[in-house]
Amino acid sequence: MGNCSQGCKDCFCRPKNTNIRLTLPVVCFVWQIAMIILFGVFIRYDEESDTHWVETKAHDNITSDIENDFYFRYPSFQDVHVMIFVGFGFLMTFLKRYSFGAVGFNFLIASFGLQWALLMQGWFHSLDPQTGKIFIGVESLINADFCVAGCLIAYGAVLGKVSPVQLLVMTLFGVTLFAVEEYIILNLLHARDAGGSMVIHTFGGYYGLAISWVLYRPNLHQSKRMQGSVYHSDTFAMIGTLFLWMFWPSFNSAITDHGDGQHRAVINTYLGLASTVLTTVAISSLSQKTGKLDMVHIQNSTLAGGVALGTAAEFMISPYGALIVGFFCGIISTMGYIFISPFLEKTLKIQDTCGIHNLHAMPGVIGGIVGAITAAAASESVYGKQGLINTFDFTGDFKDRTVLTQGGYQAAGMCVSIVFGVVGGAIVGSILKLPIWGDPADENCFDDEVYWELPDEEEEHQESIPPILEYNNHMIHKQQDLSESNFSVEHCES
Amino acid sequence: MGNCSQGCKDCFCRPKNTNIRLTLPVVCFVWQIAMIILFGVFIRYDEESDTHWVETKAHDNITSDIENDFYFRYPSFQDVHVMIFVGFGFLMTFLKRYSFGAVGFNFLIASFGLQWALLMQGWFHSLDPQTGKIFIGVESLINADFCVAGCLIAYGAVLGKVSPVQLLVMTLFGVTLFAVEEYIILNLLHARDAGGSMVIHTFGGYYGLAISWVLYRPNLHQSKRMQGSVYHSDTFAMIGTLFLWMFWPSFNSAITDHGDGQHRAVINTYLGLASTVLTTVAISSLSQKTGKLDMVHIQNSTLAGGVALGTAAEFMISPYGALIVGFFCGIISTMGYIFISPFLEKTLKIQDTCGIHNLHAMPGVIGGIVGAITAAAASESVYGKQGLINTFDFTGDFKDRTVLTQGGYQAAGMCVSIVFGVVGGAIVGSILKLPIWGDPADENCFDDEVYWELPDEEEEHQESIPPILEYNNHMIHKQQDLSESNFSVEHCES
Amino acid sequence: MGNCSQGCKDCFCRPKNTNIRLTLPVVCFVWQIAMIILFGVFIRYDEESDTHWVETKAHDNITSDIENDFYFRYPSFQDVHVMIFVGFGFLMTFLKRYSFGAVGFNFLIASFGLQWALLMQGWFHSLDPQTGKIFIGVESLINADFCVAGCLIAYGAVLGKVSPVQLLVMTLFGVTLFAVEEYIILNLLHARDAGGSMVIHTFGGYYGLAISWVLYRPNLHQSKRMQGSVYHSDTFAMIGTLFLWMFWPSFNSAITDHGDGQHRAVINTYLGLASTVLTTVAISSLSQKTGKLDMVHIQNSTLAGGVALGTAAEFMISPYGALIVGFFCGIISTMGYIFISPFLEKTLKIQDTCGIHNLHAMPGVIGGIVGAITAAAASESVYGKQGLINTFDFTGDFKDRTVLTQGGYQAAGMCVSIVFGVVGGAIVGSILKLPIWGDPADENCFDDEVYWELPDEEEEHQESIPPILEYNNHMIHKQQDLSESNFSVEHCES
Repeated sequence: MGNCSQGCKDCFCRPKNTNIRLTLPVVCFVWQIAMIILFGVFIRYDEESDTHWVETKAHDNITSDIENDFYFRYPSFQDVHVMIFVGFGFLMTFLKRYSFGAVGFNFLIASFGLQWALLMQGWFHSLDPQTGKIFIGVESLINADFCVAGCLIAYGAVLGKVSPVQLLVMTLFGVTLFAVEEYIILNLLHARDAGGSMVIHTFGGYYGLAISWVLYRPNLHQSKRMQGSVYHSDTFAMIGTLFLWMFWPSFNSAITDHGDGQHRAVINTYLGLASTVLTTVAISSLSQKTGKLDMVHIQNSTLAGGVALGTAAEFMISPYGALIVGFFCGIISTMGYIFISPFLEKTLKIQDTCGIHNLHAMPGVIGGIVGAITAAAASESVYGKQGLINTFDFTGDFKDRTVLTQGGYQAAGMCVSIVFGVVGGAIVGSILKLPIWGDPADENCFDDEVYWELPDEEEEHQESIPPILEYNNHMIHKQQDLSESNFSVEHCES
Repeated sequence: MGNCSQGCKDCFCRPKNTNIRLTLPVVCFVWQIAMIILFGVFIRYDEESDTHWVETKAHDNITSDIENDFYFRYPSFQDVHVMIFVGFGFLMTFLKRYSFGAVGFNFLIASFGLQWALLMQGWFHSLDPQTGKIFIGVESLINADFCVAGCLIAYGAVLGKVSPVQLLVMTLFGVTLFAVEEYIILNLLHARDAGGSMVIHTFGGYYGLAISWVLYRPNLHQSKRMQGSVYHSDTFAMIGTLFLWMFWPSFNSAITDHGDGQHRAVINTYLGLASTVLTTVAISSLSQKTGKLDMVHIQNSTLAGGVALGTAAEFMISPYGALIVGFFCGIISTMGYIFISPFLEKTLKIQDTCGIHNLHAMPGVIGGIVGAITAAAASESVYGKQGLINTFDFTGDFKDRTVLTQGGYQAAGMCVSIVFGVVGGAIVGSILKLPIWGDPADENCFDDEVYWELPDEEEEHQESIPPILEYNNHMIHKQQDLSESNFSVEHCES
Repeated sequence: MGNCSQGCKDCFCRPKNTNIRLTLPVVCFVWQIAMIILFGVFIRYDEESDTHWVETKAHDNITSDIENDFYFRYPSFQDVHVMIFVGFGFLMTFLKRYSFGAVGFNFLIASFGLQWALLMQGWFHSLDPQTGKIFIGVESLINADFCVAGCLIAYGAVLGKVSPVQLLVMTLFGVTLFAVEEYIILNLLHARDAGGSMVIHTFGGYYGLAISWVLYRPNLHQSKRMQGSVYHSDTFAMIGTLFLWMFWPSFNSAITDHGDGQHRAVINTYLGLASTVLTTVAISSLSQKTGKLDMVHIQNSTLAGGVALGTAAEFMISPYGALIVGFFCGIISTMGYIFISPFLEKTLKIQDTCGIHNLHAMPGVIGGIVGAITAAAASESVYGKQGLINTFDFTGDFKDRTVLTQGGYQAAGMCVSIVFGVVGGAIVGSILKLPIWGDPADENCFDDEVYWELPDEEEEHQESIPPILEYNNHMIHKQQDLSESNFSVEHCES
């Protein structure tokens, strides 16, 4: 990062230009046109969403339309979709004046990323060698949403400190890196990771943290006044938390095996998350003098159990095993907010707005480890002969793999996701440091004012609380006249 | 509209009576009792929701309960249900002081309309000639929700300017007109319109615009102060936007063919909507001096792609085709908010509160055209012989129809929906102009105060921000004494 | 309640200690560890969520994974899950300063309760006598959520007046009592109650009311200033209302019979709820001088129809029957808010924060009665021979039961639920009266300040509405200097 000091100088020595009127539309248009062309060349309906399905059915002796994969996965897909757009979006609305940015940019980068994800994942996972086409169905849509989730996690680390253009660049590279590391982990190493503890959360977490590290702002305290929450913004954030929490069983089960695979993943995630809530509350209460609870913990750490079961949810981890994972994740994640986040910021110079280290990175790593151990400890007596083969997909090239080897590959997969996150994030962070992306000045971080037309709040308050304030204004104007004050209302557009 | 000038005179020359204590309860009670009687006479469970299903299964050789249509459609139904009540309801909460009216009246007219819709659609589409009964199942519930959607779209045009009684009247006629035009388009013309680009959006859009045109208020600027949003109301509106956006794939696929039909409609809508987001952001950013985004565009225009794919989503429009439709709809809809809405208001005297012309009417027409073209361009090589028959339902009386003819009938269907919307809306608007419905005065539009008991905000602010304001009050009272001011706090109940 | 007067004296004669830093974490940790141990001993995956499912399929000649119970129930489960966490949670956010407590404690006690529910319900309903294990699947998760619903209903009665520790104790006993009464009603009496009119709503309602009666606070008026709503908190509450309303069809159908049973329960609930909305609006409008609507009624009474169809939704009550039930429930529930709630508070000394008497207790009893009548009136001509057996489960020990007898047992079931609620609530209330649980003082009720770290609102307002208030402050400071006032800003941390 040789250009770091120069970049920093640029940051602080001249006024920031946050005008994105050229860059944002250009990126959006160019990108969308590119997508249309690439989709035209590569993407087709798969056999279950094509009108030829009627022939496929006859050919494969399928008796009922209900066996179309659509009916196995669509309810889970919709839950995942809600998590991506409402869950992640509203979870980040906790800042007092960054709700538009939280929900709106989340919306933008998810819509942007999922198209690229369909292509990238298609090329790596399902390019048909004969036709050169990618055939998509409902499972592809789920995978695209998953891929985008990694980038939205990373957004949490830089929330309020970057421009939408930077977010699009971050998403573009994030999706690309994601598809590669996913290919390595799931296809080459043949690790199992249905809910993405490693592939999504660990990668996304470290990717965001590394970017945030490169983009470190020593003078961020100038935006201190904007960095807190207000009562209603915290309530909005709970919408995000709850939709993530409730639908996490769908997240972890969305692409697992039909039948018992999806069923079991749901049960495990449901239990793990319930356990996490209790330990999060316990630690949060312990951390305050009078036992009061902290909304930051309730909003975030309660989700850690879902993250940590992303790999093992489909295994026979057993119900009490899921509870144990959730138990420790609630503790560790809440402790992270209390102890590790301040340490990261002060010592490692990582400013992590939403605390994704505590919600995604650490629990993701725990999830990877739990997955490796659970896989290594699997036995035919517990899984059954065929069950073991089905669960770990010991078929084809991998039909002779033992569970111990599988455990090793699971662990290797986790390392891959960390490396991709850290190295990829550092590189992408350097790109984002270029002074051309219109990022906000240190004193304007966490403020929707920079990128959004805001409603005229002054008028609002004159209208909605008329008697008191109007009266105040009235009195004050009187006084102004009396005292002949020259004080002028400045910063009116705050 | 001969009584227009007289009606207008009434409006402005005497104080408005917004007391609905007689009319609202009477309409609700009379209507609900009528519904009970008509349901008693006409509505029965269909064979899949009747306890005789066990016999039906045996008779039809159905092996599993999972083949009950319930399991094909219920997840989509619930998504549509969320769109109707939370989606449309919260989308309209953007006004600073009309959230109760937006969510509450939306709730009322949807509940009111869906009962009438079950009857009207039943009479037109599924009245059993032998028994004289209407047999309902989950698909009927979806269709009723769809029908109500048309009226909720129309509500968007008159939001804040009408009384709940007017809304009920508007819904009563709206559902009636809907059922007739739907019958003509789907049954007589045999056009396909699973997601309702024509039947729902075009009709609903023009119906609302025509009503708004008849109810034009030249002095609406007297409510100017209430017509904007505030920060939190815009955030609430994003809840509506996102649930509409996320569940639109379910909307467009809810009543398409089992299997590949539902599957394909989901993929197309998912892609079209993603594309729309990017072009909406691009145009929104272009429209402001410094590239800032406008929440109005993000809340509304991002949905235009879903509207425009309402007809073609079930066709083999191909993934890139869906992207292209979304691409142009985002541009056109956002441009509509920037250029066309002001033009409509100034030149055509159409006050369109939510901009339904840009979100529903125009994209609906585009959807009808796209549907007609896609249908006319369908070929056996793409669809397969049986696929073509299934998709366009070329059976029975229509088994000899060609795709070109089908395209023509699709276009004809669109014209029918426009005519029904415009003419029906003009007539219903004239009825709503009668000075008996308790509509608000020009200076009280967009204000929940008129029809809702509002919490005492003064107390709120004294409590929740005590130090500053209490202190201010304290000081002011002191001053009041000092200056012997006679200023009295008026409009306290603002 | 001999210790009542002593307890009361404690309450008012010494300052309340609301420090829960010891008790809350201890209860959470001890409980969660106990859960892990008990789950380790008792809970296992059932055959449909176990990897041995592949063998079960072969053994039972099941041809497709889609016949796994997961696919019949998972969409409904997720809807129920949303009702529990978002529905109940946000419904209670209507108070101006208790949104954190409403959503947060709802989250805590639901997560706490569902684990215990899985055990309690397992021991009573599905303990395998051979292995001594409880086998859980998706239906168990739904039942656990249902069980928790009973406790969340009770929370509505004491909202804002108890500490989280009291809530956990209340949930612990509530779940225990629930499992017992459920066993008596469903297994011993063999009553049908799929949507829990009796088992969930009647029990939960009276349980909460009895607790609230024992915990009566004569000086609650000291918190009067906090007991109202504000504009945005009412809007938040509508999120809860709508998700409850929309997903109630899933609630009532989640554990009914596959096929027509689920299908019919959805139709009935959908219709009953629509009808309730209209009569609620009618009565609400009638109750105000100028016909204005009251948000309390819209938020709550609109749901009464769903409660009252909890028992009969799966019966052949017929569509118009469902409308009739909804019709009267809307009227009775709204009247309850207008007339009965004030009576309960003044005469019976029951302070019912959310009005659960009107939303759950009364409609639950109505639902029980409707269920008994509908069951007694069932006939083979309407249901079909096999349909009657399926619907009322007249198999095994109960194969000779007549519908009249069934009606009697349904009524008996309702009495059981009332007795369990009242007696159980009175006992648990006495336990909660012990002065060790850290409940708030009378003047601090309905205030999140007691148990939550709140954002610094003063700063918020200085930041977010700078010009006016800053200006005011500025002026006021000037005046302060001028008038040499000694007034100091107290209660700054209000």
